[in-house]
Amino acid sequence: MKNDSLPQIVIIGSGFGGMTAAQTLANAQVHITLVDRNNYHLFTPLLYQVATAGVSSDEIAYPVHTVFRRQKNLDFRLADVSEIDAANRRLVTSMGELRYDVLILAPGGVTNFFGEDAIEQSAFKLKNLDDAEAIRNHILKQVELAVQEPDPEIRRARLTFVITGGGPTGVETAGALSELVRMVLHKDYNRLDPSEIKILLLEASDRLIPAFSDRLSAQAAAALAKKGVEVRFHCPVTGFDGNQVLLKSGETIPSRTLIWAAGVMANLLVQQIGAPLGPQGKIKVLPTLQVPDHPEIFAIGDIAYLQDKHGQALPMLAPVAIQQGRAAGQNALRFLENAPLEPFVYKDPGTLATIGRNQAVAHIWGLQLSGFVAWLLWVVVHIFRLIGFRNRILVMIEWIWDYLFYSGAVLIITNGTEIEKAEPIKVASE
Amino acid sequence: MKNDSLPQIVIIGSGFGGMTAAQTLANAQVHITLVDRNNYHLFTPLLYQVATAGVSSDEIAYPVHTVFRRQKNLDFRLADVSEIDAANRRLVTSMGELRYDVLILAPGGVTNFFGEDAIEQSAFKLKNLDDAEAIRNHILKQVELAVQEPDPEIRRARLTFVITGGGPTGVETAGALSELVRMVLHKDYNRLDPSEIKILLLEASDRLIPAFSDRLSAQAAAALAKKGVEVRFHCPVTGFDGNQVLLKSGETIPSRTLIWAAGVMANLLVQQIGAPLGPQGKIKVLPTLQVPDHPEIFAIGDIAYLQDKHGQALPMLAPVAIQQGRAAGQNALRFLENAPLEPFVYKDPGTLATIGRNQAVAHIWGLQLSGFVAWLLWVVVHIFRLIGFRNRILVMIEWIWDYLFYSGAVLIITNGTEIEKAEPIKVASE
Repeated sequence: MKNDSLPQIVIIGSGFGGMTAAQTLANAQVHITLVDRNNYHLFTPLLYQVATAGVSSDEIAYPVHTVFRRQKNLDFRLADVSEIDAANRRLVTSMGELRYDVLILAPGGVTNFFGEDAIEQSAFKLKNLDDAEAIRNHILKQVELAVQEPDPEIRRARLTFVITGGGPTGVETAGALSELVRMVLHKDYNRLDPSEIKILLLEASDRLIPAFSDRLSAQAAAALAKKGVEVRFHCPVTGFDGNQVLLKSGETIPSRTLIWAAGVMANLLVQQIGAPLGPQGKIKVLPTLQVPDHPEIFAIGDIAYLQDKHGQALPMLAPVAIQQGRAAGQNALRFLENAPLEPFVYKDPGTLATIGRNQAVAHIWGLQLSGFVAWLLWVVVHIFRLIGFRNRILVMIEWIWDYLFYSGAVLIITNGTEIEKAEPIKVASE
Repeated sequence: MKNDSLPQIVIIGSGFGGMTAAQTLANAQVHITLVDRNNYHLFTPLLYQVATAGVSSDEIAYPVHTVFRRQKNLDFRLADVSEIDAANRRLVTSMGELRYDVLILAPGGVTNFFGEDAIEQSAFKLKNLDDAEAIRNHILKQVELAVQEPDPEIRRARLTFVITGGGPTGVETAGALSELVRMVLHKDYNRLDPSEIKILLLEASDRLIPAFSDRLSAQAAAALAKKGVEVRFHCPVTGFDGNQVLLKSGETIPSRTLIWAAGVMANLLVQQIGAPLGPQGKIKVLPTLQVPDHPEIFAIGDIAYLQDKHGQALPMLAPVAIQQGRAAGQNALRFLENAPLEPFVYKDPGTLATIGRNQAVAHIWGLQLSGFVAWLLWVVVHIFRLIGFRNRILVMIEWIWDYLFYSGAVLIITNGTEIEKAEPIKVASE
């Protein structure tokens, strides 16, 4: 339904921000092109559960085409954006050029290794489905190889899993990983010796989850310790070669697994606009979410730097992206109508983080909750926020099942083994 | 619980044959090592549904460790077998050597391209989860790219899907693929023009599914035609370069997709034993399933050539492998006890093939069924045969859901796009 006489709005990214912006514009007299390199929206808050075998990939991904099945003013383009030519209001993508009257920029964040190339090469990151599946396959393989390993040192290194970064991702991953190895895999691998398993969460500062109060933060640390996670503060990681983790103190930890949850930054695409950048390479947007000197470009989500009324940078979380998506969509229309734009105001819906079964911490409705009630709240909120009935019902079944039987959803190693595949030679048929 | 004083039985392959053999030996005074390059048992009868987005990979795969959780006389080894040194009763694997007193060989079949290297390079095969996911991703990508494509010739080539081989795999894949594109994707891609979609099933002989009677075979062909599949007989494929399919007649069909279901042969590992080979490179086993001149080696499933009482070669189907697995397990014990071995007799449980919703053909209990009743039977039998309650319940939900709402389970493209991923450069953190 492309109509060239309509104002052209291009949205880069089908994450929480871009998708919400597109939905906000559903009934507007505009033509929208939504561009993403994947054909699905990813429910990132549960990505760590793919990495820890709690849910399967397709249960937290939802096809963009299904989301916008009934939205007639939108075309989806499966493509990678290589160039933003802001001076000419033009994008270069792997599927050709796109011109825009308004650009909504929502490509999200990427992992920041702070220039540590060696770590980047050997450590795991957790930003997309491929990352999550790579972690899951690696963990399962380590356990599989550990039970066959006669050398106790190598065995312990395989069973030592290090996560660095005490934000929500690091905390949730550490808790889930500990339950996976200690409770779920332990049942299937009766040779696994629990005393040889080690899960370490290393944090550079002195507390977990900066968005939480000291009390909740301490409760999260205590809950992790109960789950068998060793939490260490003031403990930055300075190296990893696939065999040992090097700490700033000089200590080395023999381990085959480092999951890097210690840094995020804006997608580097945003640097092409030439706008002023703030911390983490984010664009310092105006209160209207516009990019300075480019009133036709809106930047939202993990790539936008904006402070709340207390002068704090807005966090890189789904609720921020969703609310900004809505605001950017509305402001884009105002911009096209030459109406005055409105400043974005973030309404904090609260923060939730789970540590594992029966354990979560929550700061919500002015309350600080932890334990079972917070966990139940976390479960309900996440089921509810998932897109699509299929995904909701399947995730619910996985969780009930796992809860009752301490089982994992996906315990198969999907990328083959480290093994060479024999090359079949030709045989004539009968 | 490895006990070196016990007789050592090594089983290669955790498919239907190998798994059943291992289960048959559950209470025997032997030590079993089960070797496979994957850590899961694959329910191959539903593999084509992974390729056509009907179920997800993890729903038809089941971890070997979970199957054998309570079997104390078995160790699983995730490894690739590179050498069978039958003279010394010894295997070389990627995880070290294994010695055996009895070897049960069940590595399964591989795709046979009859030496057509060019076809092998560009066509898709359908033997494992990677193959199935590659097909699914490719089909979804073709549709995605077709709706963006202005050139009608290229568009039609992207929407032409060719399957060659009219056995059960080809028939089931063609039916499911037609429903996926015409019924499921059509809802999400409103620009998709049904008249541009073409699904072709090419068979070299004059009938579908050799195991069926002429009547059932004709019914299968008629049902496929109704589903929008163009079935052509006497139509061998002689070439494919990724852009067009070349037929023996000289005709070319512009298409980006050739699924090769036209040939299977025994895994080439079996050639190392030096035993006499029959059609499709299979070992001509004795009636006891032993390999000639190697009474300590049993060959079962897709790699074993054996005739039924009518002189027909046993088909490469799950029921054959399962029954042979049981027989080989029992005969292995008899061999170790120096008791007389028993010849294997195949009991045909019947053949079932589905053509899509409400349509299947069945030859079972001496009856020839087709249509809705056969389809319902197919559904019940396959749910029932799946391993594990999780997989059963999830597949059931997928099927009910798809049946009611014409939806696909997995419509996400999981291997990224054909697109180059931008290499992020480093940014210092705040």
